[in-house]
Parts: sequence; C-alpha cells; structure tokens
Amino acid sequence: MIEKVDTYPIRVEPFHVDFTGRLFMGVLGNHLLNAAGNHSQRRGWGIGALNEQHYTWVLSRLCIELEEMPRQHEQVEIRTWVESVIRLFTNRNFAILRPDGTAYGYARSIWAMIDLQTRKPCDLFSLYDGDILRYVVDEADNVCPIAGHGRFRFRDAEKVRTIHTYYSDVDINGHINSIKYIEHILDLFPRERFEQQRIWRFEIAYKTEAYMGDTLTFYRQQAGPDEVDVEVRKNDNDVVCQAKICFK
Amino acid sequence: MIEKVDTYPIRVEPFHVDFTGRLFMGVLGNHLLNAAGNHSQRRGWGIGALNEQHYTWVLSRLCIELEEMPRQHEQVEIRTWVESVIRLFTNRNFAILRPDGTAYGYARSIWAMIDLQTRKPCDLFSLYDGDILRYVVDEADNVCPIAGHGRFRFRDAEKVRTIHTYYSDVDINGHINSIKYIEHILDLFPRERFEQQRIWRFEIAYKTEAYMGDTLTFYRQQAGPDEVDVEVRKNDNDVVCQAKICFK
Repeated sequence: MIEKVDTYPIRVEPFHVDFTGRLFMGVLGNHLLNAAGNHSQRRGWGIGALNEQHYTWVLSRLCIELEEMPRQHEQVEIRTWVESVIRLFTNRNFAILRPDGTAYGYARSIWAMIDLQTRKPCDLFSLYDGDILRYVVDEADNVCPIAGHGRFRFRDAEKVRTIHTYYSDVDINGHINSIKYIEHILDLFPRERFEQQRIWRFEIAYKTEAYMGDTLTFYRQQAGPDEVDVEVRKNDNDVVCQAKICFK
Repeated sequence: MIEKVDTYPIRVEPFHVDFTGRLFMGVLGNHLLNAAGNHSQRRGWGIGALNEQHYTWVLSRLCIELEEMPRQHEQVEIRTWVESVIRLFTNRNFAILRPDGTAYGYARSIWAMIDLQTRKPCDLFSLYDGDILRYVVDEADNVCPIAGHGRFRFRDAEKVRTIHTYYSDVDINGHINSIKYIEHILDLFPRERFEQQRIWRFEIAYKTEAYMGDTLTFYRQQAGPDEVDVEVRKNDNDVVCQAKICFK
C-alpha cells in the first residue's frame, strides 16, 4: 500500500515568534511549504527531480485557518496530503496538529507544474503516466474542514505603502520569495492590531513573479469589519499577489 | 563527567538560501543562536529558567568566519561550547561542520546576563555559586581558529539608507530582533556584490535595543578594498549596532 500522508515535525523557535509569543504567519507558511516539498520529494515529485526534467512546482494559492497559533517552544506536527489533481493543478492540504492530535488549524494550497523552458503549466495527468494520481487520498480519511480559496475583488483599494526589494527578499530562483510577501503584507498593520486581535484566516493568491530591485506597492481595502484585502503590484503595474487577512 | 559540548543538527531549507543557493547569513546566525539557547537550556541556564528568576541572556557580539557557506539541502552540524567566563560576559564558540566533520567555518559570540528589573549585567561567578564555570571547556579540545571580535571606528561613514521597522522585525521581547539587523545590513549591497563575491567574515556588535516603530538609519564606510563597516542608529540618534562585512 502506498503511504499517502506525511508528517513533518517542527518546533517553534524563539526567533520565529512575534511579540505576542506566537509563531509568525510567514514562518508557518514556510514550514508548510517545506512539508509539501518533503512530501513530494519522497514520492519522486520533488523540485530536484523535476528540475532535471525542466519542470518545477509553482505555488498558486495558500490559505491558512487557525483556532490558535502555536506558541514559542511548542512541538507541532504538520500533516500533508494531496486532496485532488485537476489536470493543471493539484490541491494539497495540511493539518497543523498538537502532540495530542488536536488541531491548531488547517491549510489549503494549489500548485501548478510549469515547464521551465516555456513557463507554461503542464498536464499533470500525462506526466509520468499519471503517477501523481496514486497519491491522491480518500477524502473520508483526511478532512480539511476549512473553506476553499475565495475570490478577490479590488474596487476602492487605497495605496498604502511602496517598498524596494533587496537581497534578503529573493529566493534561489531570483524571485521575491513567497514567504516574504506574507511578511511585507502583515507589516502593513500597526502593533495595536496584533495586541488586540489575532489572525484566524489568511489567504494569498500568487499571480506573477517579482524580482530583486522591483518596487512593490501595497493597496489595501476593508472587506468587512475585521477583514482586510491587500493587493501587491510591482513597479506600480502588474499584480503580483493578493491577500485576505481576517482578524478576530 | 559533565558533557560540555553540544551538537545541533540543521538542514538547509529551500527558503533559507539566497539566489546563489547558499544559506543566508542571517539564517545561519539564527541557527547559531538556537544552538546556544539549546545548549544553555540543557544545563539549567536557559532563558526560560532564568526569566523566572528575572535574568536573561543578551547577545553582545557575534562573528562568523566561513570557508564556504552551506548550500540548499545540505546537512550541517553546529557544535557549541563555552570558551570562557569573565565575570560579566561569557565567550561562546561554534563550529559549523559538514557530516564528514570538516568545517564550513566557525563563530564566536559574547553574551551578558542581565537582571530584567535593573537592566544591568550580573556577576556570572556569583549566580548559582559559579555553576557556569563547570561548563567551560579545555581549550585544547575545542579550537576556534578565527580572530576574535575587532573594534569599530567610524570616521567618515556615509548615511546610505533609512528604514522603518514593523511587526516582522520584532521579537518576543518587543525588540528589533538581532537577526533582522543582519538582513537589513546585507540588504545594503547590490545583487552584483553577491554574484561576484562571497562574505568570508561577518562581525556584529549589539549596543542598544530598538523597538517596533523606531526608524533605523544605516551609515556605511569602506574599511578596506573588500571590507565594509556599517553603523545602525535608531531615530538618527543612539547607535544600535555596528557590523563589519568582509567579502572575497
């Protein structure tokens, strides 16, 4: 029988918590991506193996919903599995668990496989004769009880900040790293917001790559009493990513 | 016999490498501090135990010297030990090792123990009846073959950047986190610098704490052909930290 679900253990490190003593959302995102990378690597679908064949995984969407954010020194287990494959995309889910098996929360992500030469998405069913379908789990066994990815509509967003991008923002591909966007987006909020409220849901959709030296401009719109949408544009032009932050 | 040296294993994660595929200096710094925290925790000198008694460790200086920076996916072992204790300070060293035991490089650090109420340094010899001295290693067994911490002299430093500090910059104590300074300092250099050269020595001295919302101004001075000194001031006043970056 094929093992379809992996467990990735982490410990919440001192420099990975915010001033309230809770894990930074960006660092949690980083752990989720590592768990995902590990899971696919062990099944022959890792970036290393794919790169040799000129393919790579690209993260398209990520949403995280939490009852509680892990605290400094806590031991956390991330379970991850592939929920479904729809030709050009896979849906990968995550459970973020305490040692006793109860959940801090869950996450959903959508990934595309792109051809490094054409930069176009590939048909996942045709790659390796549809091998990836062997790893799709039965829904009944692994529930991800959070809402799927929503849609963004920016109408009256206000330009709130412009930043430059530097060496530390960039990943091995020379792109602004997906996690850094999360940091920069949460940096739009003042200290008081994090003192009085916590983020119970965070959603992000990645649209285009930005590069070191690009300018990022942040547009912000109130989507509900405790819900803020942020759109990030590069060089005040193309949309790079869009995010929704729900406080409670 | 008391075990005086600890080994802290890490794996170089994908989001922790720069565009050349090598570990970010700041992330390496973070791993070193975790290794240090672990080492002292296991000996009853951890921040948790100390906090209950109103003491905490404060990092005063860190210098790292590397023959090579670890690459993505590499397995790295950090060995750490206390070299000496001089009443108000401890000298803690690190070896950054490959699986075969050869060294990527070494690091030195200086720590003070402060009283959280008075914010003054404590006499380490009097705490717990000088227990800390039991952990000082014999020099012969653990060599740290890199130069000690140097002195900084800023004469004709040029103001090169001012940044604001936000939520992501701050640690659990509400201070700008020591690792973030390293990131912001290295962000002063253009892409070409990292394409053509590597950092073989990095040195930082922490002077005063800065807080979320403080403005950080960076002053830069050429200290040699491939050696740059950076001084960081908060709100264009107090010196927060000073760093030396040696390229090769």
